[in-house]
Amino acid sequence: MTDHGETTRKGGEIRNFGTQTYKVVGTRPIRHDGTDKVTGRAVYGGDIRLPGMLYGQILRSPHAHARIQRIDTSRAEALPGVHAVVTAADLPDTTGGRIDLGEGHADTKYMRDNILAGDKVLYRGHAVAGVAAVSLHVAEEALALIDVDYELLEPVIDVETAMKDSAPLLHEGLTTTELNEDTGRKSNIAMHIRHEMGDVQQAFAGAAHVAEAEIRTATVHQGYIEPQNGTASWSEDGQLTIWTSTQGSFTAQKQLATILDIPVSKVRVIPQEIGGGFGGKIPVYVEPVAALLSRKTAHPVKIIMTRADVFESTGPTPGSYVRVKMATDASGKLVASEAHIALEAGAFPGAEIGAAAMCVFSCYDIPHAVVDGYDVVVNKPKSAPYRAPGATQVTWPVEKVMDDLARQLGKDPVAFRLDNAAAEGTRRVDGIVYPRIGGRECLEVARDSDHYQSELSGPYRGRGMAIGYWFNIGLKSAVTASVNADGTVHLVEGSTDIGGTRTSVAMQFAETLGLDAADIYPSVGDTSAIGYTDVTGGSRVTYATGWAAYEAAEDVKRQMIERAAILWESSADQVEYSDGVFKTRDGSKSADFKQLAQKLEDTGGPVVGRATVHPDTGVGGSFAVNIVDVEVDPDTGKVDILRFTVIQDAGKAIHPSYVEGQMQGGSVQGIGWALNEEYAYTEEGRMANSTFLDYRMPTSLDLPMIETIIVEVPNPGHPYGVRGVGEASIAPPPAAVAAAVENATGTQLNVLPLRPDRIINAMEDSIPAAAG
Amino acid sequence: MTDHGETTRKGGEIRNFGTQTYKVVGTRPIRHDGTDKVTGRAVYGGDIRLPGMLYGQILRSPHAHARIQRIDTSRAEALPGVHAVVTAADLPDTTGGRIDLGEGHADTKYMRDNILAGDKVLYRGHAVAGVAAVSLHVAEEALALIDVDYELLEPVIDVETAMKDSAPLLHEGLTTTELNEDTGRKSNIAMHIRHEMGDVQQAFAGAAHVAEAEIRTATVHQGYIEPQNGTASWSEDGQLTIWTSTQGSFTAQKQLATILDIPVSKVRVIPQEIGGGFGGKIPVYVEPVAALLSRKTAHPVKIIMTRADVFESTGPTPGSYVRVKMATDASGKLVASEAHIALEAGAFPGAEIGAAAMCVFSCYDIPHAVVDGYDVVVNKPKSAPYRAPGATQVTWPVEKVMDDLARQLGKDPVAFRLDNAAAEGTRRVDGIVYPRIGGRECLEVARDSDHYQSELSGPYRGRGMAIGYWFNIGLKSAVTASVNADGTVHLVEGSTDIGGTRTSVAMQFAETLGLDAADIYPSVGDTSAIGYTDVTGGSRVTYATGWAAYEAAEDVKRQMIERAAILWESSADQVEYSDGVFKTRDGSKSADFKQLAQKLEDTGGPVVGRATVHPDTGVGGSFAVNIVDVEVDPDTGKVDILRFTVIQDAGKAIHPSYVEGQMQGGSVQGIGWALNEEYAYTEEGRMANSTFLDYRMPTSLDLPMIETIIVEVPNPGHPYGVRGVGEASIAPPPAAVAAAVENATGTQLNVLPLRPDRIINAMEDSIPAAAG
Repeated sequence: MTDHGETTRKGGEIRNFGTQTYKVVGTRPIRHDGTDKVTGRAVYGGDIRLPGMLYGQILRSPHAHARIQRIDTSRAEALPGVHAVVTAADLPDTTGGRIDLGEGHADTKYMRDNILAGDKVLYRGHAVAGVAAVSLHVAEEALALIDVDYELLEPVIDVETAMKDSAPLLHEGLTTTELNEDTGRKSNIAMHIRHEMGDVQQAFAGAAHVAEAEIRTATVHQGYIEPQNGTASWSEDGQLTIWTSTQGSFTAQKQLATILDIPVSKVRVIPQEIGGGFGGKIPVYVEPVAALLSRKTAHPVKIIMTRADVFESTGPTPGSYVRVKMATDASGKLVASEAHIALEAGAFPGAEIGAAAMCVFSCYDIPHAVVDGYDVVVNKPKSAPYRAPGATQVTWPVEKVMDDLARQLGKDPVAFRLDNAAAEGTRRVDGIVYPRIGGRECLEVARDSDHYQSELSGPYRGRGMAIGYWFNIGLKSAVTASVNADGTVHLVEGSTDIGGTRTSVAMQFAETLGLDAADIYPSVGDTSAIGYTDVTGGSRVTYATGWAAYEAAEDVKRQMIERAAILWESSADQVEYSDGVFKTRDGSKSADFKQLAQKLEDTGGPVVGRATVHPDTGVGGSFAVNIVDVEVDPDTGKVDILRFTVIQDAGKAIHPSYVEGQMQGGSVQGIGWALNEEYAYTEEGRMANSTFLDYRMPTSLDLPMIETIIVEVPNPGHPYGVRGVGEASIAPPPAAVAAAVENATGTQLNVLPLRPDRIINAMEDSIPAAAG
Repeated sequence: MTDHGETTRKGGEIRNFGTQTYKVVGTRPIRHDGTDKVTGRAVYGGDIRLPGMLYGQILRSPHAHARIQRIDTSRAEALPGVHAVVTAADLPDTTGGRIDLGEGHADTKYMRDNILAGDKVLYRGHAVAGVAAVSLHVAEEALALIDVDYELLEPVIDVETAMKDSAPLLHEGLTTTELNEDTGRKSNIAMHIRHEMGDVQQAFAGAAHVAEAEIRTATVHQGYIEPQNGTASWSEDGQLTIWTSTQGSFTAQKQLATILDIPVSKVRVIPQEIGGGFGGKIPVYVEPVAALLSRKTAHPVKIIMTRADVFESTGPTPGSYVRVKMATDASGKLVASEAHIALEAGAFPGAEIGAAAMCVFSCYDIPHAVVDGYDVVVNKPKSAPYRAPGATQVTWPVEKVMDDLARQLGKDPVAFRLDNAAAEGTRRVDGIVYPRIGGRECLEVARDSDHYQSELSGPYRGRGMAIGYWFNIGLKSAVTASVNADGTVHLVEGSTDIGGTRTSVAMQFAETLGLDAADIYPSVGDTSAIGYTDVTGGSRVTYATGWAAYEAAEDVKRQMIERAAILWESSADQVEYSDGVFKTRDGSKSADFKQLAQKLEDTGGPVVGRATVHPDTGVGGSFAVNIVDVEVDPDTGKVDILRFTVIQDAGKAIHPSYVEGQMQGGSVQGIGWALNEEYAYTEEGRMANSTFLDYRMPTSLDLPMIETIIVEVPNPGHPYGVRGVGEASIAPPPAAVAAAVENATGTQLNVLPLRPDRIINAMEDSIPAAAG
């Protein structure tokens, strides 16, 4: 989609609202790991082969909801070539407790039960047993020899049914936490949260214009190309080593330590290259099973998921049911809003509801607002983070209501949003008061854009727009840097690299020292090789790990200045460094970085810099605006995207091509949610389309070039003004596409995805209405 | 030989001459990497398997000396399954220049020619071409299809012949460097060095007692179990990654960069576990060939040597011819000494002569001395460092002369040596003036030992003793350390671990922070993951990398104190740390290391410490004394070692079991030199015993338990008083064993090894002498 291979590449438009110009930051150097990725040299988890390694397979539940009455593994264990079989009985009893995974907390009991089912299976695909054997085929054969007696239970697979008092309960021990207090009430509703500000009832009563929307969105998967995988080697001295595809080696370490009930330092996670994650590779799945099998067999054990496993047994984003109501005064100023958000957590309580409640009204300045959020368990795989988790589900209904209000007011949708846009000082319903943000600038840029100013005509064509938000996170990062004798620097970071962060982090290091990006050799350290670093998620890596790189560069600079002082028999305070050159203040001595690097041996040995950061303030949120033109085939209901523009507030774009790549990737995933993607469930709770043939993700053939405009409103909370750009762009596309389709067809739509059959039905429904 | 598995293990005797007692340093914790080593989980170079990997084989010269007239690779290239063939023509022309390899310099032209022969082959086994193919067998088949036309030349395989004016010349371009100046004289003598002190001629003229010895030692191999191996992946963007068994990843990086003429930062060396090195795994052999093949094929390529390759094509220690003459005054005080040392460098100039000349008289205080050293090329594989390189060859003749002088003076050999032992302030012939050393203490401990005080009687039994020395080196090391949330620490060092240095380094880190050794998780970083660190050799790792660990721990301590100050709203100068507990000076607040480690997240994020060191002063040399009792079978000449004691000056023994292991290992290798080991050459220069069946290394069945006495004379140049213990113990065994055999048989011996046939012949020769 984007071209990372040319330094001279002409990128998309960049609109600067006060960011600085730098030597390296803001340029488009070649990606450090690019060649190995395109030539196939990069090593992924699937490539791992260890001496004596066995192959693992996992037996998964064929039922969406059932009680396990008995598991008999004896026939499987007797099969020649089988080394061991494990079930939940092999897991330590880690009931109770919660751990912080960076993007949300997890209940340790549920985490354990999701690895290998305890007394119940809660979704089709739920892991029941693991087998290690001399080959994949023997392991697969053994799966068929494991006898499981199930007592079938009625499944519940949608959030509205699950919330009913009459619904079958998934967990007998689950009681609703209501506004932070355990109600003791048994229910599928794990949690009810509420944010409230002002007097909503009175504000609605006095409002001039009111609009409402009620929408439903489907269960959607991240659709990363590389399936989950894990290889475990559990040594007899208790040291467990895991090779895996993960978004956070330390987060994986923490989960494994908790599930297996061993200290974190006994788990070494060696992150491999990652073929996509989008949040879905934060939880562990096969790794603990491989670990148990390794301990039991005294061999390394490797497990790789199939594509069907990935769909059925990892964590998609919650399906949702959302109602939103908003009101303005006569002038068109928003005065009140309320939202009811119910998210499907899947089989175990989820974490998305918090973010959904934070994001639902975050684009606007609304004095009176209330948000009720419900986290609800259903017989589907446990949800996992998926790019701005929870934000996309709530952006559509809000934007749909905003369009309705704009229509009522006779205002241009962008102008109406600008009138009500949140800005520095705006208080959000969850209590946060914004620092400098870029939402307004994004809307202005959208309004003035070539796309929005262009005419769109023709039958069954329509334009839509929408704005979405993601708050981004900071958390903890570490970087170390070693100066080489040739004046280059090897940099180690703890952030696994999904979207080019090796380069965006290295560029900030280079900038700080006045070096070229190509002089920095970044790599990702495993948990034994680098300081604790939180997950690659929440759009945090270029922000926080980049900041750590900045600090590590400052540490190198300080030491190099001391070395120059030794070399020149001066003192450190008499040496200065700028533009890549060390010199004495009197100008008598000077050396560039490379020259001084050659002298380190004579002045005390190598130089190593290090830094750790934990920016708990300073994180800057990011807004994304979409403009989309569509054409709908009136005979089939098929939607063609004619033109799509994404405008996003990046803070300073460290590597504009990668920012554009994130904007384009987020947009395309959002278009997938809008038009095609969903888990198609049978009544028994079986996913009917667990292949990439039937689960339709958009490909390059389905889409025009996604146009980008980067908006640079600097984040004052970062040395280079970075905000983080990985997520916001997925939030608005369903809203913008649905608006465009509604405009093209004169219909109202309220269920995602906008399948051809749904569009045709809506068009048929709307004809008499239009006629009447 | 030693038991590393029990913390309560009773070790050998330790005699303390002023070292401190510590909590961790000086104890015997379980080795961090021990379990993985004994269970087979540890990953060695031979275990590496990469996607698309090809297998390499190397064609080696069948001749000791020949001119290459033509190499035709076309038939090999045409063999199905062969991907590429490389010869010296594929190497860049890197003539001229020298690089520093830590343990000696190397001429880049010669380094290149030793990787793949240029116009001449200079020893049997010299690499001529490399093949990469889909399997080892196809590659092997292809070797037979490479047509090489040789013009045979007369080989010269011993140092004395090679030094003659009439000798065939190995290198037409080689001229002798005489006392640091190029003479322009074509010769096999690459270098003549001289150290001189006082007026030797006059001192000999006035001496009361004079003795001389003339000895020859054989070419001997380190005999590590794991053969050399290397896997290379050379990416299209110019990045070369090497997985190899090496004593120094950065030294390997430097060699590869030089041989392949690319910047060091373009080479990433990932050191694997190492199955022994003893100096022999400092040079690279197969790695550059694998790299060339990888570049040519665009695949990863792996090459593993056979045992015969290891013997014939890697670097044994030089065979030698040495003459020594020493004199005392009437009281028995040494007054003069002279040495003529000629070492076989093998096919290219070597580095051992410098160390040999430094060590030859280093145990004694001698006012007048001269040393002439000759580095001589012969048609044998290029020598490589082997444990105290050059010291063992010169220790025997000196100790033989010392025994002769003691006999002339009627003195006990230990007492005579004590009368003349070097001590603090003694000036060596090479100009070095000793700081505090422990040679005298070692001799005193030997004299007073149970072994030396015991009686030895019986026919054909004899006792010998000897003392040897190694100077040790410092060089550069880096360590980083990350504090884990559970209060343990992950430590990364750049020193590849051959003898347990992960643990000896981690223990110094633990001691500095008041932690347990088991709380530290040490690992070896690759060249991209840690600051520049010199070779594992010269007995430097526990000394220098241990020092870096000490400094890194101090860096962690400083940061943790700052965190405690933040937590307690105090200031860093009000917080102190001792015995593993942080507390405010007023005693109101305290937390142990683990408690504070849990609070790092709240006080600014993770803590990472780092340090680099380059101790150019402060390195302490080490002395080793042996006492050995032997019994000789008068019918066969076979020697049995009845009892063997090694006494060595360790400075502070960080982990006494590992010190004892080094002392025992060095002793056993020295016994191998003494009794069995040698390259048996045919007249054509072919090694006739290139298997472990025919090249007889001592096994546990051949030896008694080697008794150890650690002598702790602290090194004032190290925070914990460490000297470095890996090498000195190999120097005295041949001298001590030969003395014992001479005493047992009443003979004089002057050629190593002391083969049964040589002993029988000497005994037969001595009968008439004794009778006469």
